[in-house]
Amino acid sequence: MSMRQDVLVVGSIGLDSVKTPFGEVSEVLGGSAIYSSLAASYFTSVKLVGVVGEDFLNQHVELLKRHGIDLTGLTTLQGKTFRWKGDYGYDLNEAITLDTELNVLSGFNPQLPEVYKDIKYVFLANLDPDLQLSVLKQLRKPEVVVCDTMNFWIHGKRDSLIEVLKRVDIVVMNDAETRELCKEPNLVKAGRTILSWGPKRVIIKKGEHGSLMFANGSFFSAPAYPLEDIFDPTGAGDTFAGGFIGYLASCGQMNDMNIRKAVIYGTTMASFVVEDFSVLRTAALNQQEIKDRYREFQEMVHFGE
Amino acid sequence: MSMRQDVLVVGSIGLDSVKTPFGEVSEVLGGSAIYSSLAASYFTSVKLVGVVGEDFLNQHVELLKRHGIDLTGLTTLQGKTFRWKGDYGYDLNEAITLDTELNVLSGFNPQLPEVYKDIKYVFLANLDPDLQLSVLKQLRKPEVVVCDTMNFWIHGKRDSLIEVLKRVDIVVMNDAETRELCKEPNLVKAGRTILSWGPKRVIIKKGEHGSLMFANGSFFSAPAYPLEDIFDPTGAGDTFAGGFIGYLASCGQMNDMNIRKAVIYGTTMASFVVEDFSVLRTAALNQQEIKDRYREFQEMVHFGE
Repeated sequence: MSMRQDVLVVGSIGLDSVKTPFGEVSEVLGGSAIYSSLAASYFTSVKLVGVVGEDFLNQHVELLKRHGIDLTGLTTLQGKTFRWKGDYGYDLNEAITLDTELNVLSGFNPQLPEVYKDIKYVFLANLDPDLQLSVLKQLRKPEVVVCDTMNFWIHGKRDSLIEVLKRVDIVVMNDAETRELCKEPNLVKAGRTILSWGPKRVIIKKGEHGSLMFANGSFFSAPAYPLEDIFDPTGAGDTFAGGFIGYLASCGQMNDMNIRKAVIYGTTMASFVVEDFSVLRTAALNQQEIKDRYREFQEMVHFGE
Repeated sequence: MSMRQDVLVVGSIGLDSVKTPFGEVSEVLGGSAIYSSLAASYFTSVKLVGVVGEDFLNQHVELLKRHGIDLTGLTTLQGKTFRWKGDYGYDLNEAITLDTELNVLSGFNPQLPEVYKDIKYVFLANLDPDLQLSVLKQLRKPEVVVCDTMNFWIHGKRDSLIEVLKRVDIVVMNDAETRELCKEPNLVKAGRTILSWGPKRVIIKKGEHGSLMFANGSFFSAPAYPLEDIFDPTGAGDTFAGGFIGYLASCGQMNDMNIRKAVIYGTTMASFVVEDFSVLRTAALNQQEIKDRYREFQEMVHFGE
C-alpha cells in the first residue's frame, strides 16, 4: 500500500524585477524554492527550507501559509532578501540577468529542522551544489531526491555538481545546461552520460519543445502546452519540478507510470506559471483547472492503437 | 465502409551527392518523389509522376518496381537527371547546398496519365508551386491533397505557394519554413495563420523535437525517435510525408484519429531513413520493423489516465 508523502524543498527565495515584452514588475516574489513549493502544494504538504532578509514582506509569508507550506525551515537573517533583475527578449528563451544581489543568500547554510530529516521526497532546487550536498548529508532516509541546477554552477562548481548528481535519484535540467554539462550536442547521448554517473532518471526540459525523460530501459517524451504567448517565463523550470515531485509524493510510490504522470503534472503547472508575472497565476489555481489541463495533455498526444 | 486508396506522388527525382560527418556518397538515388513514394509503398499502391534524364540507371527503376510503384507517369527526357550536392555539419539540422543542376527538371511540366486523374489521395512533394497548381487542376476528384515545399519557393514564389496552400487539405512544412512563410517566430501563431488561409490541417516538422499538427479544434504533438546518431538526414521530410499519406490512404477514411496515426507512421518511416544514406534503409524495411517502431512510439508517449 502506498501513502501520500510530504515534500521537502530547499532553494532560494528572492525578490525579482522582471521585464518581458508584455510588461514589467519590480521586486515581486520569486526564487526557486518559492516557485517549486507553491506548485508542489497543490498535490501534497510542503516543508520549505530557505532564507530571507528582514525586508521580506509578511504578505509573502501569508501566501505560503495559505498554501499549507510548513515554514519551520524558513530562516530570517539580518540584512536584505536576495534580489534578481532580468530581462527577456522576444524569443523569451533565456533571461538576460541585469543584476544579482545575493544579500542574505550569501550566508545561507541550510540546516534541516529535526522533523524534516526523515522526509522521503526531497527537491533540491537550484542552489550552490555544496549546499545541496550538505542537505543530502542531513537526510536520514531519503527515497526520492530530485535536483535542479543552472549554468552558473556548471561553470563554477562542476565537480561538486557531479557529486550531487551521483547521489540523487532524478536530475531535472534544461537542454542548454545538459549540453554544456556533458559537452555533447545530442541530448540522447547527453542523457545517457548523466545516467552513467548514477541517477536513475534524467529529465531534460526543452521549453516550447516539451521534455524528455531517460531511464535505463525506458524513454518518455512529453509535449509542451501550445501557448501563443508566454507572458513571463521566470520560474517555469522550478514550477515544473515542484509539480513533478509534488504529484510523485502524493502517489507515495515511485514507478515508471507514476513518474510519467508526474512529468505531465509538472508540465501542467509550468504551463500556468508563464501566463502571468511571479506566482500570480500559480497561487490562484484550483484543482479543477489543473485536472482539465492535464486532460488536455492526454488528448494532445493520443493516437490510439 | 472505407477502402484502401492509391496514392499519387508528384515531385522531383534526382541523383544526390551527400557528405555527412559519418561518410560520403556520390550520385545516389534521391529526390522528393523517390523518398516519399518508397515510404508510402509500405502502406498502399503508389503512382509516381516525375522526370528523369537518359542517364537514369535501370537499377533505380527496378527498385521502384519492386516496391509496386506504378511508373506510368515517369517521363524520360533528353538530357541528364536532376543533381543535388549537399553537405551537413555536425548539428545535421540543415544541409549546405554545394551545387544544384536542374537538368531535365527545368523542363518538367507534370502531365497526369488519364488513369491518375481520378486518384483521391495526392502528395504534392516539394516542387515549383506553379507546377503543384497545374497538377491540382488536372485532378478530377481529389479527397486528400497533402503538400510540402521549401525555403526556395517561400522566397521566390510566395504568392503561388499561398495559392497552393489555399487549395490543399494538409500542409506539411518544417519549423524554419513555417516561421519564414508566416514571418512569425511562435509556431502556434504561425500554424493558425496557415489554417486561416484554407487548409484543414498544418503539420509542422521540428526534426529532433518531433512534430505538431494544428487543426480547428484539435492539436496533436508527436515525438521524435530518440536517435543517438543521424547518419544522413536527407529525405527525412519527404519520407515523413510519404509514410503519412501512405498510411492515411490505406485507411481510406480521413478522421482525426487516422490522421494522428498517420503522423506517427510518417515519423516512424523518417526515423528509419536517416539511419543510412539515400533510400538504403527505407528500401530494405519489412512490415514487422515498421510495426515494432510504431509500438515504441506508443510506449514513448504513454502516461495513463
